[in-house]
Amino acid sequence: MFTVYGDKRSGNCYKIQLTCALLDLNYDWIDVDIMHGESQSAAFKQLSPAAKIPIVKFADGRVLSESNAICNFLAYDSPLYPVDKFTQAAIQQWQFYEQYSHEPNIAVARFIKLYQGLPDNRQAEYENKVVGSYKALEVMEKALQQMPFFAGENLTTADISLFAYTHKADEGGISLADFPNVEAWIERVQSSPNFVTMDY
Amino acid sequence: MFTVYGDKRSGNCYKIQLTCALLDLNYDWIDVDIMHGESQSAAFKQLSPAAKIPIVKFADGRVLSESNAICNFLAYDSPLYPVDKFTQAAIQQWQFYEQYSHEPNIAVARFIKLYQGLPDNRQAEYENKVVGSYKALEVMEKALQQMPFFAGENLTTADISLFAYTHKADEGGISLADFPNVEAWIERVQSSPNFVTMDY
Repeated sequence: MFTVYGDKRSGNCYKIQLTCALLDLNYDWIDVDIMHGESQSAAFKQLSPAAKIPIVKFADGRVLSESNAICNFLAYDSPLYPVDKFTQAAIQQWQFYEQYSHEPNIAVARFIKLYQGLPDNRQAEYENKVVGSYKALEVMEKALQQMPFFAGENLTTADISLFAYTHKADEGGISLADFPNVEAWIERVQSSPNFVTMDY
Repeated sequence: MFTVYGDKRSGNCYKIQLTCALLDLNYDWIDVDIMHGESQSAAFKQLSPAAKIPIVKFADGRVLSESNAICNFLAYDSPLYPVDKFTQAAIQQWQFYEQYSHEPNIAVARFIKLYQGLPDNRQAEYENKVVGSYKALEVMEKALQQMPFFAGENLTTADISLFAYTHKADEGGISLADFPNVEAWIERVQSSPNFVTMDY
Protein backbone atom coordinates (compact mmCIF):
# COMPACT_ATOMS: atom_id res chain seq x y z
CA MET A 1 0.00 0.00 0.00
CA PHE A 2 1.20 3.52 -0.76
CA THR A 3 -0.06 7.08 -0.78
CA VAL A 4 -0.20 9.31 -3.84
CA TYR A 5 -0.06 13.08 -3.31
CA GLY A 6 -1.53 14.79 -6.32
CA ASP A 7 -3.96 17.17 -7.98
CA LYS A 8 -6.53 15.57 -10.26
CA ARG A 9 -6.35 18.45 -12.76
CA SER A 10 -2.71 17.53 -13.45
CA GLY A 11 -1.97 15.11 -16.28
CA ASN A 12 1.25 14.16 -14.50
CA CYS A 13 -0.85 12.95 -11.56
CA TYR A 14 -3.34 11.20 -13.83
CA LYS A 15 -0.44 9.08 -15.16
CA ILE A 16 -0.22 7.48 -11.70
CA GLN A 17 -3.99 6.96 -11.48
CA LEU A 18 -4.04 5.32 -14.91
CA THR A 19 -1.03 3.09 -14.18
CA CYS A 20 -2.61 1.93 -10.92
CA ALA A 21 -5.96 1.28 -12.61
CA LEU A 22 -4.42 -0.77 -15.43
CA LEU A 23 -2.42 -2.79 -12.90
CA ASP A 24 -5.30 -2.99 -10.41
CA LEU A 25 -3.21 -1.48 -7.60
CA ASN A 26 -4.79 -0.01 -4.47
CA TYR A 27 -3.56 3.24 -3.02
CA ASP A 28 -4.53 6.18 -0.85
CA TRP A 29 -4.89 9.58 -2.46
CA ILE A 30 -4.16 12.92 -0.81
CA ASP A 31 -5.21 16.05 -2.68
CA VAL A 32 -2.58 18.77 -3.04
CA ASP A 33 -4.18 21.89 -4.48
CA ILE A 34 -1.48 23.36 -6.73
CA MET A 35 -3.65 26.32 -7.69
CA HIS A 36 -3.61 27.45 -4.07
CA GLY A 37 0.09 26.85 -3.53
CA GLU A 38 -0.22 23.72 -1.40
CA SER A 39 2.77 22.16 -3.15
CA GLN A 40 4.88 25.15 -2.04
CA SER A 41 4.13 24.76 1.68
CA ALA A 42 6.95 23.93 4.08
CA ALA A 43 5.21 20.70 5.08
CA PHE A 44 4.98 19.51 1.48
CA LYS A 45 8.56 20.52 0.74
CA GLN A 46 9.65 18.20 3.54
CA LEU A 47 8.21 15.36 1.48
CA SER A 48 9.12 16.67 -1.96
CA PRO A 49 12.27 18.84 -2.07
CA ALA A 50 11.44 19.98 -5.62
CA ALA A 51 7.94 20.99 -4.43
CA LYS A 52 6.36 19.18 -7.34
CA ILE A 53 3.47 16.75 -7.61
CA PRO A 54 2.86 13.86 -7.94
CA ILE A 55 4.84 12.08 -5.29
CA VAL A 56 4.33 8.63 -3.87
CA LYS A 57 5.07 7.69 -0.28
CA PHE A 58 5.50 4.03 0.56
CA ALA A 59 4.73 2.28 3.86
CA ASP A 60 8.45 2.08 4.71
CA GLY A 61 8.74 5.87 4.46
CA ARG A 62 10.53 6.03 1.12
CA VAL A 63 9.33 8.69 -1.29
CA LEU A 64 9.51 8.91 -5.09
CA SER A 65 8.86 11.95 -7.24
CA GLU A 66 8.64 12.55 -10.99
CA SER A 67 5.56 11.02 -12.59
CA ASN A 68 7.34 8.88 -15.18
CA ALA A 69 9.81 7.40 -12.69
CA ILE A 70 6.87 6.54 -10.41
CA CYS A 71 4.94 4.84 -13.23
CA ASN A 72 7.96 2.73 -14.18
CA PHE A 73 8.50 1.73 -10.57
CA LEU A 74 4.87 0.73 -10.02
CA ALA A 75 4.75 -1.16 -13.33
CA TYR A 76 8.16 -2.84 -12.98
CA ASP A 77 8.12 -6.39 -14.36
CA SER A 78 4.53 -6.06 -15.62
CA PRO A 79 3.58 -5.89 -19.33
CA LEU A 80 3.53 -2.09 -18.91
CA TYR A 81 7.27 -2.02 -18.03
CA PRO A 82 8.72 -5.44 -18.83
CA VAL A 83 12.17 -6.48 -17.67
CA ASP A 84 13.82 -6.21 -21.05
CA LYS A 85 16.75 -3.86 -21.44
CA PHE A 86 15.90 -2.47 -24.84
CA THR A 87 12.16 -2.19 -24.19
CA GLN A 88 12.86 -0.25 -20.99
CA ALA A 89 15.21 2.07 -22.91
CA ALA A 90 12.61 2.62 -25.64
CA ILE A 91 10.00 3.43 -22.98
CA GLN A 92 12.33 5.88 -21.24
CA GLN A 93 13.29 7.46 -24.56
CA TRP A 94 9.66 8.44 -25.13
CA GLN A 95 9.18 9.50 -21.53
CA PHE A 96 12.18 11.84 -21.68
CA TYR A 97 10.80 13.12 -24.97
CA GLU A 98 7.52 13.74 -23.18
CA GLN A 99 9.08 15.67 -20.32
CA TYR A 100 11.39 17.77 -22.50
CA SER A 101 9.58 18.38 -25.78
CA HIS A 102 5.91 17.53 -25.22
CA GLU A 103 4.69 18.35 -21.70
CA PRO A 104 6.33 21.83 -21.53
CA ASN A 105 4.32 22.72 -24.65
CA ILE A 106 1.02 20.83 -24.55
CA ALA A 107 0.53 20.89 -20.77
CA VAL A 108 1.61 24.50 -20.39
CA ALA A 109 -0.62 25.64 -23.30
CA ARG A 110 -3.49 23.90 -21.49
CA PHE A 111 -2.59 25.54 -18.18
CA ILE A 112 -2.41 29.03 -19.68
CA LYS A 113 -5.66 28.64 -21.63
CA LEU A 114 -7.83 26.52 -19.34
CA TYR A 115 -6.74 27.66 -15.90
CA GLN A 116 -5.41 31.17 -16.50
CA GLY A 117 -7.90 32.17 -19.22
CA LEU A 118 -5.13 33.16 -21.67
CA PRO A 119 -4.12 36.50 -20.10
CA ASP A 120 -2.51 39.17 -22.30
CA ASN A 121 0.88 38.88 -20.62
CA ARG A 122 1.15 35.21 -21.52
CA GLN A 123 -0.21 35.47 -25.08
CA ALA A 124 3.21 35.38 -26.80
CA GLU A 125 4.37 32.51 -24.64
CA TYR A 126 1.12 30.65 -25.37
CA GLU A 127 1.66 31.05 -29.11
CA ASN A 128 5.16 29.57 -28.79
CA LYS A 129 3.70 26.66 -26.85
CA VAL A 130 1.17 26.04 -29.62
CA VAL A 131 3.98 25.85 -32.20
CA GLY A 132 5.93 23.48 -29.94
CA SER A 133 2.83 21.38 -29.35
CA TYR A 134 2.24 20.75 -33.06
CA LYS A 135 5.93 19.88 -33.50
CA ALA A 136 5.66 17.32 -30.69
CA LEU A 137 2.49 15.86 -32.22
CA GLU A 138 4.20 15.52 -35.62
CA VAL A 139 6.96 13.42 -34.06
CA MET A 140 4.33 11.24 -32.36
CA GLU A 141 2.32 10.92 -35.58
CA LYS A 142 5.39 9.70 -37.47
CA ALA A 143 6.30 7.17 -34.79
CA LEU A 144 2.76 5.79 -34.72
CA GLN A 145 2.90 5.17 -38.48
CA GLN A 146 5.44 2.44 -37.65
CA MET A 147 3.87 0.79 -34.62
CA PRO A 148 0.61 0.74 -32.61
CA PHE A 149 2.22 1.84 -29.33
CA PHE A 150 5.33 3.87 -28.56
CA ALA A 151 7.51 0.98 -27.44
CA GLY A 152 6.20 -1.42 -30.10
CA GLU A 153 3.33 -3.87 -30.16
CA ASN A 154 2.08 -3.40 -26.61
CA LEU A 155 0.84 -0.67 -24.34
CA THR A 156 3.55 0.45 -21.89
CA THR A 157 4.17 3.28 -19.48
CA ALA A 158 5.52 5.27 -22.44
CA ASP A 159 1.95 5.41 -23.77
CA ILE A 160 0.57 6.34 -20.36
CA SER A 161 3.09 9.20 -20.10
CA LEU A 162 2.28 10.58 -23.55
CA PHE A 163 -1.46 9.94 -23.31
CA ALA A 164 -1.99 12.07 -20.21
CA TYR A 165 -1.71 15.50 -21.80
CA THR A 166 -2.19 14.50 -25.46
CA HIS A 167 -5.80 13.42 -24.92
CA LYS A 168 -6.51 16.79 -23.25
CA ALA A 169 -4.68 18.85 -25.88
CA ASP A 170 -7.96 20.43 -27.04
CA GLU A 171 -8.25 22.13 -23.64
CA GLY A 172 -5.11 24.04 -24.59
CA GLY A 173 -6.48 24.96 -28.01
CA ILE A 174 -4.49 22.24 -29.78
CA SER A 175 -6.38 20.23 -32.39
CA LEU A 176 -5.54 16.61 -33.14
CA ALA A 177 -7.48 16.67 -36.43
CA ASP A 178 -4.33 16.50 -38.57
CA PHE A 179 -2.89 13.59 -36.61
CA PRO A 180 -5.00 10.53 -37.48
CA ASN A 181 -2.48 8.05 -36.06
CA VAL A 182 -2.42 9.92 -32.77
CA GLU A 183 -6.23 9.89 -32.67
CA ALA A 184 -6.35 6.14 -33.39
CA TRP A 185 -3.72 5.54 -30.67
CA ILE A 186 -5.80 7.52 -28.17
CA GLU A 187 -8.71 5.19 -28.88
CA ARG A 188 -6.45 2.16 -28.46
CA VAL A 189 -5.29 3.41 -25.05
CA GLN A 190 -8.87 4.20 -24.02
CA SER A 191 -10.01 0.69 -24.92
CA SER A 192 -7.46 -1.00 -22.61
CA PRO A 193 -8.99 -3.20 -19.89
CA ASN A 194 -9.43 -1.27 -16.61
CA PHE A 195 -8.88 2.12 -18.32
CA VAL A 196 -10.00 5.07 -16.19
CA THR A 197 -10.78 8.57 -17.41
CA MET A 198 -9.16 11.75 -16.10
CA ASP A 199 -11.85 13.33 -13.92
CA TYR A 200 -11.53 16.77 -12.35
CA MET B 1 30.00 -1.87 -31.07
CA PHE B 2 27.79 1.14 -31.72
CA THR B 3 27.91 4.61 -33.19
CA VAL B 4 27.19 7.81 -31.28
CA TYR B 5 25.98 10.83 -33.26
CA GLY B 6 26.67 13.97 -31.29
CA ASP B 7 28.19 17.41 -30.85
CA LYS B 8 30.96 17.67 -28.28
CA ARG B 9 29.79 21.11 -27.12
CA SER B 10 26.55 19.52 -25.91
CA GLY B 11 26.40 18.33 -22.32
CA ASN B 12 23.73 15.85 -23.35
CA CYS B 13 26.25 14.23 -25.71
CA TYR B 14 28.99 14.35 -23.09
CA LYS B 15 26.78 12.18 -20.85
CA ILE B 16 27.27 9.36 -23.36
CA GLN B 17 31.03 9.93 -23.59
CA LEU B 18 31.33 9.88 -19.81
CA THR B 19 29.18 6.77 -19.39
CA CYS B 20 31.23 4.93 -22.02
CA ALA B 21 34.51 6.02 -20.42
CA LEU B 22 33.46 4.92 -16.93
CA LEU B 23 32.32 1.57 -18.32
CA ASP B 24 35.29 1.25 -20.70
CA LEU B 25 33.01 0.82 -23.73
CA ASN B 26 34.30 1.32 -27.29
CA TYR B 27 32.25 3.21 -29.84
CA ASP B 28 32.44 5.20 -33.05
CA TRP B 29 31.66 8.90 -32.95
CA ILE B 30 30.09 10.92 -35.74
CA ASP B 31 30.04 14.68 -35.35
CA VAL B 32 26.70 16.41 -35.93
CA ASP B 33 27.20 20.17 -35.93
CA ILE B 34 24.05 21.53 -34.29
CA MET B 35 25.17 25.14 -34.72
CA HIS B 36 25.03 24.68 -38.49
CA GLY B 37 21.72 22.84 -38.51
CA GLU B 38 23.07 19.38 -39.24
CA SER B 39 20.59 17.82 -36.82
CA GLN B 40 17.77 19.36 -38.87
CA SER B 41 18.80 17.76 -42.17
CA ALA B 42 16.51 15.26 -43.87
CA ALA B 43 19.20 12.56 -43.61
CA PHE B 44 19.55 13.03 -39.86
CA LYS B 45 15.79 13.15 -39.36
CA GLN B 46 15.61 9.68 -40.92
CA LEU B 47 17.72 8.45 -38.00
CA SER B 48 16.24 10.70 -35.32
CA PRO B 49 12.60 11.68 -35.87
CA ALA B 50 12.82 14.34 -33.15
CA ALA B 51 15.95 15.79 -34.87
CA LYS B 52 17.79 15.84 -31.57
CA ILE B 53 21.26 14.69 -30.55
CA PRO B 54 22.67 12.51 -29.13
CA ILE B 55 21.47 9.31 -30.74
CA VAL B 56 23.07 5.89 -30.69
CA LYS B 57 22.87 3.42 -33.57
CA PHE B 58 23.60 -0.21 -32.85
CA ALA B 59 25.06 -2.81 -35.23
CA ASP B 60 21.62 -4.42 -35.67
CA GLY B 61 20.21 -1.11 -36.92
CA ARG B 62 18.26 -0.18 -33.82
CA VAL B 63 18.46 3.45 -32.77
CA LEU B 64 17.98 5.08 -29.37
CA SER B 65 17.58 8.78 -28.66
CA GLU B 66 17.38 10.86 -25.46
CA SER B 67 20.65 11.07 -23.58
CA ASN B 68 19.43 9.73 -20.25
CA ALA B 69 17.66 6.72 -21.79
CA ILE B 70 20.86 5.94 -23.72
CA CYS B 71 23.03 6.14 -20.58
CA ASN B 72 20.70 3.80 -18.68
CA PHE B 73 20.72 1.33 -21.56
CA LEU B 74 24.51 1.32 -21.89
CA ALA B 75 24.97 1.03 -18.12
CA TYR B 76 22.24 -1.57 -17.55
CA ASP B 77 23.24 -4.10 -14.88
CA SER B 78 26.49 -2.27 -14.08
CA PRO B 79 27.11 -0.35 -10.81
CA LEU B 80 26.05 2.80 -12.73
CA TYR B 81 22.55 1.41 -13.30
CA PRO B 82 22.11 -1.67 -11.13
CA VAL B 83 19.20 -4.06 -11.55
CA ASP B 84 17.33 -2.97 -8.47
CA LYS B 85 13.83 -1.65 -8.88
CA PHE B 86 14.02 1.17 -6.37
CA THR B 87 17.53 2.27 -7.31
CA GLN B 88 16.49 2.47 -10.95
CA ALA B 89 13.45 4.53 -9.96
CA ALA B 90 15.60 6.88 -7.86
CA ILE B 91 18.01 7.30 -10.79
CA GLN B 92 15.17 8.05 -13.19
CA GLN B 93 13.60 10.45 -10.72
CA TRP B 94 16.73 12.61 -10.82
CA GLN B 95 17.08 12.25 -14.58
CA PHE B 96 13.54 13.45 -15.18
CA TYR B 97 14.25 16.27 -12.76
CA GLU B 98 17.33 17.07 -14.85
CA GLN B 99 15.44 17.15 -18.13
CA TYR B 100 12.49 19.14 -16.83
CA SER B 101 13.81 21.52 -14.18
CA HIS B 102 17.59 21.65 -14.59
CA GLU B 103 18.74 21.33 -18.21
CA PRO B 104 16.15 23.80 -19.65
CA ASN B 105 17.60 26.39 -17.26
CA ILE B 106 21.32 25.70 -16.82
CA ALA B 107 22.02 24.40 -20.35
CA VAL B 108 19.93 27.06 -22.04
CA ALA B 109 21.54 29.87 -19.98
CA ARG B 110 24.91 28.50 -21.13
CA PHE B 111 23.77 28.34 -24.75
CA ILE B 112 22.46 31.91 -24.75
CA LYS B 113 25.56 33.31 -23.02
CA LEU B 114 28.39 31.19 -24.40
CA TYR B 115 27.23 30.51 -27.95
CA GLN B 116 24.88 33.38 -28.69
CA GLY B 117 26.77 36.07 -26.76
CA LEU B 118 23.71 37.09 -24.73
CA PRO B 119 21.85 39.06 -27.42
CA ASP B 120 19.37 41.77 -26.36
CA ASN B 121 16.35 39.87 -27.60
CA ARG B 122 17.11 36.94 -25.27
CA GLN B 123 18.12 38.99 -22.20
CA ALA B 124 14.78 38.58 -20.39
CA GLU B 125 14.67 34.87 -21.16
CA TYR B 126 18.26 34.52 -19.95
CA GLU B 127 17.39 36.17 -16.66
CA ASN B 128 14.51 33.75 -16.16
CA LYS B 129 16.89 30.88 -16.86
CA VAL B 130 19.31 32.18 -14.23
CA VAL B 131 16.53 32.20 -11.63
CA GLY B 132 15.52 28.68 -12.64
CA SER B 133 19.14 27.54 -12.52
CA TYR B 134 19.63 28.64 -8.93
CA LYS B 135 16.36 26.98 -7.96
CA ALA B 136 17.54 23.71 -9.52
CA LEU B 137 20.89 23.98 -7.74
CA GLU B 138 19.16 24.53 -4.38
CA VAL B 139 17.25 21.29 -4.81
CA MET B 140 20.50 19.48 -5.66
CA GLU B 141 22.31 21.08 -2.71
CA LYS B 142 19.63 19.88 -0.30
CA ALA B 143 19.67 16.33 -1.69
CA LEU B 144 23.46 16.16 -1.42
CA GLN B 145 23.27 17.07 2.26
CA GLN B 146 21.73 13.63 2.77
CA MET B 147 23.91 11.45 0.54
CA PRO B 148 27.14 11.57 -1.49
CA PHE B 149 25.49 10.73 -4.82
CA PHE B 150 21.98 11.27 -6.15
CA ALA B 151 20.81 7.68 -5.87
CA GLY B 152 22.60 7.06 -2.57
CA GLU B 153 26.06 5.77 -1.72
CA ASN B 154 27.35 5.15 -5.24
CA LEU B 155 27.85 6.99 -8.49
CA THR B 156 25.10 6.18 -10.99
CA THR B 157 23.82 7.50 -14.30
CA ALA B 158 21.76 10.02 -12.29
CA ASP B 159 25.04 11.71 -11.36
CA ILE B 160 26.30 11.58 -14.93
CA SER B 161 23.07 13.21 -16.14
CA LEU B 162 23.21 16.01 -13.59
CA PHE B 163 26.98 16.47 -13.79
CA ALA B 164 27.07 17.26 -17.51
CA TYR B 165 25.68 20.78 -17.39
CA THR B 166 26.21 21.50 -13.69
CA HIS B 167 29.99 21.44 -13.97
CA LYS B 168 29.79 23.90 -16.89
CA ALA B 169 27.27 26.19 -15.18
CA ASP B 170 29.85 29.01 -14.96
CA GLU B 171 29.84 29.22 -18.77
CA GLY B 172 26.22 30.32 -18.46
CA GLY B 173 27.03 32.88 -15.77
CA ILE B 174 25.82 30.64 -12.94
CA SER B 175 28.06 30.48 -9.87
CA LEU B 176 28.27 27.38 -7.70
CA ALA B 177 29.92 29.30 -4.83
CA ASP B 178 26.83 29.09 -2.61
CA PHE B 179 26.43 25.34 -3.15
CA PRO B 180 29.28 23.66 -1.27
CA ASN B 181 27.71 20.20 -1.42
CA VAL B 182 27.31 20.51 -5.17
CA GLU B 183 30.95 21.55 -5.51
CA ALA B 184 32.12 18.62 -3.36
CA TRP B 185 29.97 16.26 -5.43
CA ILE B 186 31.53 17.59 -8.65
CA GLU B 187 34.95 16.70 -7.24
CA ARG B 188 33.71 13.24 -6.29
CA VAL B 189 32.45 12.63 -9.83
CA GLN B 190 35.71 13.95 -11.31
CA SER B 191 37.77 11.60 -9.17
CA SER B 192 35.97 8.47 -10.45
CA PRO B 193 38.26 5.93 -12.15
CA ASN B 194 38.31 6.43 -15.95
CA PHE B 195 36.69 9.88 -15.70
CA VAL B 196 37.01 11.94 -18.90
CA THR B 197 36.65 15.69 -19.22
CA MET B 198 34.25 17.46 -21.59
CA ASP B 199 36.48 18.75 -24.39
CA TYR B 200 35.26 21.02 -27.18
